[in-house]
Amino acid sequence: MKSVPHRKSDQGRVVAICGGVGGAKLALGLSRAVGSDLTVIVNTGDDFEHLGLAISPDLDTVLYTLAGVANKELGWGRADETWNFMDALRHLGGEAWFQLGDRDLALHVQRTQQLNSGVSLTSFMQKAARQHNIAATILPMSDDPVRTMLSTSRGRLAFQRYFVEHRCAPQVNGIFFEGAEDARPSNEVLSALQAPDLRAVIICPSNPYLSIDPILAVPGMRSLIEGAKAPVIAVSPIIGGAAVKGPTTKIMAELGVPSTSRSIARHYGGLLHGLIIDADDAAEGDEIRSLVHAVPTLMKTDQDRDRLAREALKFADQITADLRQKARASM
Amino acid sequence: MKSVPHRKSDQGRVVAICGGVGGAKLALGLSRAVGSDLTVIVNTGDDFEHLGLAISPDLDTVLYTLAGVANKELGWGRADETWNFMDALRHLGGEAWFQLGDRDLALHVQRTQQLNSGVSLTSFMQKAARQHNIAATILPMSDDPVRTMLSTSRGRLAFQRYFVEHRCAPQVNGIFFEGAEDARPSNEVLSALQAPDLRAVIICPSNPYLSIDPILAVPGMRSLIEGAKAPVIAVSPIIGGAAVKGPTTKIMAELGVPSTSRSIARHYGGLLHGLIIDADDAAEGDEIRSLVHAVPTLMKTDQDRDRLAREALKFADQITADLRQKARASM
Repeated sequence: MKSVPHRKSDQGRVVAICGGVGGAKLALGLSRAVGSDLTVIVNTGDDFEHLGLAISPDLDTVLYTLAGVANKELGWGRADETWNFMDALRHLGGEAWFQLGDRDLALHVQRTQQLNSGVSLTSFMQKAARQHNIAATILPMSDDPVRTMLSTSRGRLAFQRYFVEHRCAPQVNGIFFEGAEDARPSNEVLSALQAPDLRAVIICPSNPYLSIDPILAVPGMRSLIEGAKAPVIAVSPIIGGAAVKGPTTKIMAELGVPSTSRSIARHYGGLLHGLIIDADDAAEGDEIRSLVHAVPTLMKTDQDRDRLAREALKFADQITADLRQKARASM
Repeated sequence: MKSVPHRKSDQGRVVAICGGVGGAKLALGLSRAVGSDLTVIVNTGDDFEHLGLAISPDLDTVLYTLAGVANKELGWGRADETWNFMDALRHLGGEAWFQLGDRDLALHVQRTQQLNSGVSLTSFMQKAARQHNIAATILPMSDDPVRTMLSTSRGRLAFQRYFVEHRCAPQVNGIFFEGAEDARPSNEVLSALQAPDLRAVIICPSNPYLSIDPILAVPGMRSLIEGAKAPVIAVSPIIGGAAVKGPTTKIMAELGVPSTSRSIARHYGGLLHGLIIDADDAAEGDEIRSLVHAVPTLMKTDQDRDRLAREALKFADQITADLRQKARASM
């Protein structure tokens, strides 16, 4: 934070940075807390072309979650889904390793057509969010393609092949973001992170390696976050030495990193003003050099999401207040 | 027929030429009669790209009809269909004037992907037919794009816009087959029509102007049919002065042609060895210069389809027998 903001400490715009399921839960809590003041910057490293269709798994998870139509049983895709397309595709001998529901398919077909006719992914997602009556703004981290590739015990794998087809079984020994060097943050991402009335930048409890790192790999993104006129806080995805969902813990082990919030703090390094860790891991707080706030971080219900969102905002507001006080003291 | 065939008169290969619904019914009857001896050459003038997908309405109608999965209530698309894709697409503000069922969509997505990867429409449809356990061969009239365009009271309209979006309401004053001059019959179409053991070429009771003419507009097709070593017969789509389905009668009126089987005979001209007309129009037979056979042509049940298929084959076999006798008499 270069300067002391002039807004009231509990007002202003909020940026959430996230991947799919786990991150989207906190994004939902934040959208319920601040509505149209929220901008969610979402990982597109998992995007891929499948059956000729442009698929954006994390953007769609955030869209469906914020629209209240996410499939809670599956943890991906849409609620009230049917699978007749997949049945017929399988019958035709089509590629069936990646499940696409009948309703979900509309988003992919429409997106593919729009992208092919020159519409940006950013514009498409903004229109889709409006059509789902979402007040928050959902932005891809970039309109340029970035593809997360994993160097594994079964060779180089694109993310969805690793995650869905191989069910995260191969051992990971390296993660690369193809195309990242040529990608740029969109104007909308720039504006969101440069907002003069920014209240907080919240890195959601997504997988730091697979969901947040691709975002930080976009040239300029890290300095935009560092230059934001608001505290940057992260919510650790680790609870009691393990991640709630997905391959975070497995990948951390394979990369030789202990599955602790301390590792998360170290991973994000100087980017953070504060880290929220789970109340059960409060003891770990003393070992972490970042400012730490320990609260329950498991999100099972909307109440959990709302509470964690409020805690994250309160934590950011407290950091802002402390910084203001320090600034006044040094005047 | 250039030479007298040496096969037995009730054996050999059969080529059916058809468009969508009406024609497909007779193609089904023929496939039940002769199985793998049948090749169906299908109109692709109605094909179009929609939502970025390659749609082939007549090919798909023939595929679904011969596979026994056609939607009999709707007259198009698949049986046991669901519409959740369309619901979601409408919600997203997508183009909803052309209905695509969830199961049906698999065929379009798979075809689009295959065509984009260099597979021919002919190969794709042959594989799809095998996957649907269809013994007959279903061939597009050409692998080159031909697009039926209508000059109408509401301007120039692509076929599906006229047929589906405008529900055939505009007055038609001209029909054009864009791309036809550059199209070629595929090798598979060539082989089917040049088969030495050909028993009959049967032009199904499809719309002559919209479904059969695009096929005949492919350069070389008409002479292939004329050179076929078998009688060419057509089944008139007119019953009692009107077509059973679709805009045939309306278009004939708009083009200034009476809705009679006589007009059909005149339209196909020298191509035919014989014309099957409906029993109710038997009186018309005397006025038609082609050899005419009058039988019930309305196909409501599978029995109707089987009976008309048998009548068509018998009629062709009789023409062959007559021609043989004449050839012997002139020796």
